[in-house]
Amino acid sequence: MSDGNVMKILVATDLHVGYKEKDGERGKDSFLALEEVFTIAKERDVDFILLGGDLFHENKPSRKTLHRTMELFRKFCLGNRACHIEIVSDQAVNFGHTSSSVTCVNYEDPNINIKMPVFSIHGNHDDPTGAGELSAIDFLSVAGFLNHFGKPTSLEKIEISPILMQKGSTKLALYGLGSIRDERLHRLFLNKKVTFLRPSESADEWYNIFTIHQNRVKHGATNYIPEEFVEHFIDLVIWGHEHECLIKPQWNTQQSFHVMQPGSSVATSLCEAESKNKHVAVLTIDGRKMETDIIRLRTVRQMYVENVNLAESIRIKSPSREELERAARDYCNERVELLLMRAEDERSGHPKQPIKPLIRLRVDYSGGFESFNAYRFGAQFTDRVANPENIVHFLKKSQRTRSDDF
Amino acid sequence: MSDGNVMKILVATDLHVGYKEKDGERGKDSFLALEEVFTIAKERDVDFILLGGDLFHENKPSRKTLHRTMELFRKFCLGNRACHIEIVSDQAVNFGHTSSSVTCVNYEDPNINIKMPVFSIHGNHDDPTGAGELSAIDFLSVAGFLNHFGKPTSLEKIEISPILMQKGSTKLALYGLGSIRDERLHRLFLNKKVTFLRPSESADEWYNIFTIHQNRVKHGATNYIPEEFVEHFIDLVIWGHEHECLIKPQWNTQQSFHVMQPGSSVATSLCEAESKNKHVAVLTIDGRKMETDIIRLRTVRQMYVENVNLAESIRIKSPSREELERAARDYCNERVELLLMRAEDERSGHPKQPIKPLIRLRVDYSGGFESFNAYRFGAQFTDRVANPENIVHFLKKSQRTRSDDF
Ligand SMILES: [Mn+2]
Ligand SMILES: [Mn+2]
Ligand SMILES: [Mn+2]
Ligand SMILES: [Mn+2]
Repeated sequence: MSDGNVMKILVATDLHVGYKEKDGERGKDSFLALEEVFTIAKERDVDFILLGGDLFHENKPSRKTLHRTMELFRKFCLGNRACHIEIVSDQAVNFGHTSSSVTCVNYEDPNINIKMPVFSIHGNHDDPTGAGELSAIDFLSVAGFLNHFGKPTSLEKIEISPILMQKGSTKLALYGLGSIRDERLHRLFLNKKVTFLRPSESADEWYNIFTIHQNRVKHGATNYIPEEFVEHFIDLVIWGHEHECLIKPQWNTQQSFHVMQPGSSVATSLCEAESKNKHVAVLTIDGRKMETDIIRLRTVRQMYVENVNLAESIRIKSPSREELERAARDYCNERVELLLMRAEDERSGHPKQPIKPLIRLRVDYSGGFESFNAYRFGAQFTDRVANPENIVHFLKKSQRTRSDDF
Repeated sequence: MSDGNVMKILVATDLHVGYKEKDGERGKDSFLALEEVFTIAKERDVDFILLGGDLFHENKPSRKTLHRTMELFRKFCLGNRACHIEIVSDQAVNFGHTSSSVTCVNYEDPNINIKMPVFSIHGNHDDPTGAGELSAIDFLSVAGFLNHFGKPTSLEKIEISPILMQKGSTKLALYGLGSIRDERLHRLFLNKKVTFLRPSESADEWYNIFTIHQNRVKHGATNYIPEEFVEHFIDLVIWGHEHECLIKPQWNTQQSFHVMQPGSSVATSLCEAESKNKHVAVLTIDGRKMETDIIRLRTVRQMYVENVNLAESIRIKSPSREELERAARDYCNERVELLLMRAEDERSGHPKQPIKPLIRLRVDYSGGFESFNAYRFGAQFTDRVANPENIVHFLKKSQRTRSDDF
């Protein structure tokens, strides 16, 4: 039984539904994760799901991906279960920006029976474009399956109006800001053009969450949003867009708020940051007290990234070119075999977790070594590794990893 | 008050929503017609709307068109109003072909409140394609806004399973077949590969409607479906795809059934057939007795197509080339002015009917006349005609009109 004064919120972000949908092996990974998120929400009996953007991987999802996503939302969001959270802010302001037919939160629409509300901002992957400035998530919104909030209505001056939620004695002000080009938002913050509106009465009784989808890591002078830009009164920043799972709330002393970075639920880049286990969190908010319960996603495909330095690992007495190449290949082979054993050991136990892991060897071949045909190398692992075509990535010491677009 | 034994069905087809959506003048025409169809259905208090295919103009509708269509369906289909038609056939067979999440008619889904059910087959414009064999109307279907029926599950052998509907003492067997390439379907009929399944008991108590979306006009030996292919037991064929409004049921003596061809609700071709008034029909079925009420659509943009023969209309004594050209231009000008006056006289009176008509002069300039710059000619009517760029179409006697793709 859920306590009448306690809000429970499942937080996830960057589901990137439809990622690699045409890949016979990996095509369903993103959907599996979405299903798992819904399942956890149901099992934990949360009041709602909060998504931090990039629900869709493609700005224009394929017909199949959009349809499948709508199927899953229909299955998991529609049904009989009372929603105990009352919204006391102006709902037309909170949700009306995407369609004249959306004037309130979906569970207050008397024509749609919602058992699991979902609230989402948009990310850069599913940002509003084209005629009507619509996001792919607006199809879910107009179907009544999702509550799209935090869409900036101007790019010159941003006023962030919170969704004010009440459950018994607990009051939550939920702020959100859909993805904007980092440089632009950075400048708007610097020019004091970003305002957080606050409830006019008893402002200090509210627990304040801000959901954002921007670069948190500094990529350039203004190509990120410093945490210091976010106002002090916020209690918890939920940071989308960054795919590395740093979901344990980090305390920012200067700002005196927590930052939670859930990370993506599907890896879109074969890098170390994404090879960590993926998680979602359940927030329990009681008055102004918040606790987090971190839950590992168990259907996510395993991923291992290993750095290999050939010069440090291989000793050959009289190296011919052929011998060096063979030795490198044999060594990599051995590493992959070890990682495959490790993967077997470390399976989550979830029956739907895919068997084949993603494996990436970052092979430093400086010091006189030769690269070999990575494609032919991978071919022997076709039946055991999910990405045989690019297991090995050759680099020389000076090179740094570049991660894909989040 | 609707009689408990009488079914009322609004029939429309070929709405081609999204047609010319980027045209500043004509972009909204197709949406206006969809709204009008919904409004008539509401005013007439019909039990449901039956659509004959080509709801969408594009196989992949633009984001804006799909979103706007969903908005309109949400607005007009969701709400409080009991649906009195009971479906006694296997609904999983009738509707389950497009999604595992669709197992029954939308108004029986306890999670969606339907006030106006819509049933539709798909046309050639919105036919199922790509991964998952999905049609654009399946987005409406998975949202719970529309019941997609009549999708052939095989292209080798077609069994058409009717939706068996009952309202009091009236029984309706609704057969449907989504669009298939004409040559293929023609061959399947010839090879006895198309079967109409019938209720096992009291088959002769049912009123039988068949909804089809194919060429009715013979375009080639097998490039159409002869009415004679349709089984005798059918009482009414509703023929989509042909855009000319021939909505008054035509009696086929040989087959002893009626054929109703509603025609499109938006003109997609500047031809005579499409310039007629557009209509929808309300069928009233009481037992095996059916009556039709034909209703003109009053928001449809007016269209006039006139044949002009310059040699017959213009007399000049000593024709120079310039004089001939000027005379031709003056004459066409006069015709357009007359048609504009006629348009003003013939407005429907609906406040939303667009002011500017579509005008097409088919100018036969054989007999020594000269064509003139049609584009410059049209420019003077920019403020009064919806298609200034192509009012005049020059042809010589031998040429026949070719109509666009329906
Ligand atoms: Mn992102
Ligand atoms: Mn992302
Ligand atoms: Mn058609
Ligand atoms: Mn058509």
